[in-house]
Amino acid sequence: VVAAAERLRGHIRRTPALCSGELASGAELWLKAENLQYIGAFKARGAMHAALRLSPEERDRGFITYSSGNHAQAVAFAARRFGVSAHIAMPVDAPRVKVDVVRSLGAHIEFAGTTSPERHQAALRIQEQSGGVIIEPFDDPDIIAGQGTATLELIDQVAEQTGGGTLDALVVPVGGGGLIAGACLATMGTPTRICSAEPVGCDALAQSLARGERVPVEPGPTIADGLKPTMIGALNFAIARERVSESFTVSDDQIAGALVALLVRAKLLVEPSGAAALAVALGRALPGQRIGVILSGGNIAPERLAELVGRHAPASG
Amino acid sequence: VVAAAERLRGHIRRTPALCSGELASGAELWLKAENLQYIGAFKARGAMHAALRLSPEERDRGFITYSSGNHAQAVAFAARRFGVSAHIAMPVDAPRVKVDVVRSLGAHIEFAGTTSPERHQAALRIQEQSGGVIIEPFDDPDIIAGQGTATLELIDQVAEQTGGGTLDALVVPVGGGGLIAGACLATMGTPTRICSAEPVGCDALAQSLARGERVPVEPGPTIADGLKPTMIGALNFAIARERVSESFTVSDDQIAGALVALLVRAKLLVEPSGAAALAVALGRALPGQRIGVILSGGNIAPERLAELVGRHAPASG
Repeated sequence: VVAAAERLRGHIRRTPALCSGELASGAELWLKAENLQYIGAFKARGAMHAALRLSPEERDRGFITYSSGNHAQAVAFAARRFGVSAHIAMPVDAPRVKVDVVRSLGAHIEFAGTTSPERHQAALRIQEQSGGVIIEPFDDPDIIAGQGTATLELIDQVAEQTGGGTLDALVVPVGGGGLIAGACLATMGTPTRICSAEPVGCDALAQSLARGERVPVEPGPTIADGLKPTMIGALNFAIARERVSESFTVSDDQIAGALVALLVRAKLLVEPSGAAALAVALGRALPGQRIGVILSGGNIAPERLAELVGRHAPASG
Repeated sequence: VVAAAERLRGHIRRTPALCSGELASGAELWLKAENLQYIGAFKARGAMHAALRLSPEERDRGFITYSSGNHAQAVAFAARRFGVSAHIAMPVDAPRVKVDVVRSLGAHIEFAGTTSPERHQAALRIQEQSGGVIIEPFDDPDIIAGQGTATLELIDQVAEQTGGGTLDALVVPVGGGGLIAGACLATMGTPTRICSAEPVGCDALAQSLARGERVPVEPGPTIADGLKPTMIGALNFAIARERVSESFTVSDDQIAGALVALLVRAKLLVEPSGAAALAVALGRALPGQRIGVILSGGNIAPERLAELVGRHAPASG
């Protein structure tokens, strides 16, 4: 992770870490604002890091990936930075706003079914034809190390702003497990407890930790569209099982409430997936504790945002 | 301003300065995110600085001010920090959300008419009774120096992040003129052009600059409720006339468009007044330029926000 941070210097943003007095009651919340990262999500870190680890010859063959969301944007973003092509397999039912952004970054989109295996197959076909390099969404050491740099920065920022202080706990949203595996590595040797945040009905990590092995899940409906894996990554699980202290699930209502509270009180926009860790932190009494919360991304359709604000905002006159 | 920055260290937030590639086409925009300041607006700087300039004996007599908006919150915030009382004269038609926040900060509210002179009279009456100290909203050297620290930080942050670079221009929203007078002082001796942003029909500074003397205005209707002065401050005008290069006005539609674009693309929430400078920067072709924009605040009622997002958001599917 430390080496990844070195490599990424100048390629990604050192996003702000904001100590919030507006949201917490008692606890000291440290919000790592990855919604302010390039492409609006931490995924820029892993994709850019994977791209930097390739040789110039490999890079020139172009990037390929499969994703319904922010990783697609991240790979398109990295490809544009290196001036190479990007081919992205996306589901036929991908939100138009995400398709538009990927396209505006200059990537070619191939629509393929609605499930992750269908997209993966499409990516393999593109690779056969084009010879490009597949940049994996989460189950990959370079991706994990890249995502871990968000936590590494947060650790530094907390220490800088508190005269050497450390986090008691860090809450991380979990989809495929790239961000939390990176957080586990970045906090190794520190006393910081790592807590996972998953939507109710999509708790692939919690179930796998309970069982002691990876469990496939049929993700239930949730507004947190980035946190709906069918299975946690293999490498991700191997790392997480050694380090994650507690697993939490949050409901759509808790996620929406956290999203709107963050927007109205702390003036930061996150997508539902990006509010899951905050929902965990706000749902618990953590007096006197110093809690890190990763706000993983901010890409939300304006209609959805207007609806959530209308429904979950505190009344005022 | 430099001395004010020293005094304010540890009392206010060093807010992020974000270089935006999401919003600008051609120009390099540097967004000074004072919406992330304590109480959600730059006003915390001036009020806290004025409070720090008082003797402990003066402070203990309590603070008084008159304001319909963010300055009321700022004075209440400063009073709470010092553990002293705050009395705020607010208009009878103040938005409930602002009244609630001021009250939640522990201040006493006195409702007084609907105009600034009526509020000022009420503040003078409170002072006679309580012996407290009036903290002026904008026409005061300590307030101006405090507000100037936002620009001073931005200058430092741009230099840090660009290897010693400077801003070609800085766009500042203008109400009573505290922020822009501070910006004028903070940029003295630099090549940075200072540009003002006022709502159409509320251009007290533009009219005063054109006339060469302060002109009272009857502010027209605007969604930018923080930018509706009846007259620019005397000291503020004396400073601004020496340094402001260009005055711009923006319509409510331009302000709302900038607010929603910033929210959707850069993930930051501002209030309409806080979007005025951005509306100026987005409304002009400024290729190759490095433009600073002060996002002055983020206190907006959730209903208004939901309405603006619903009305001004780009369509998506």
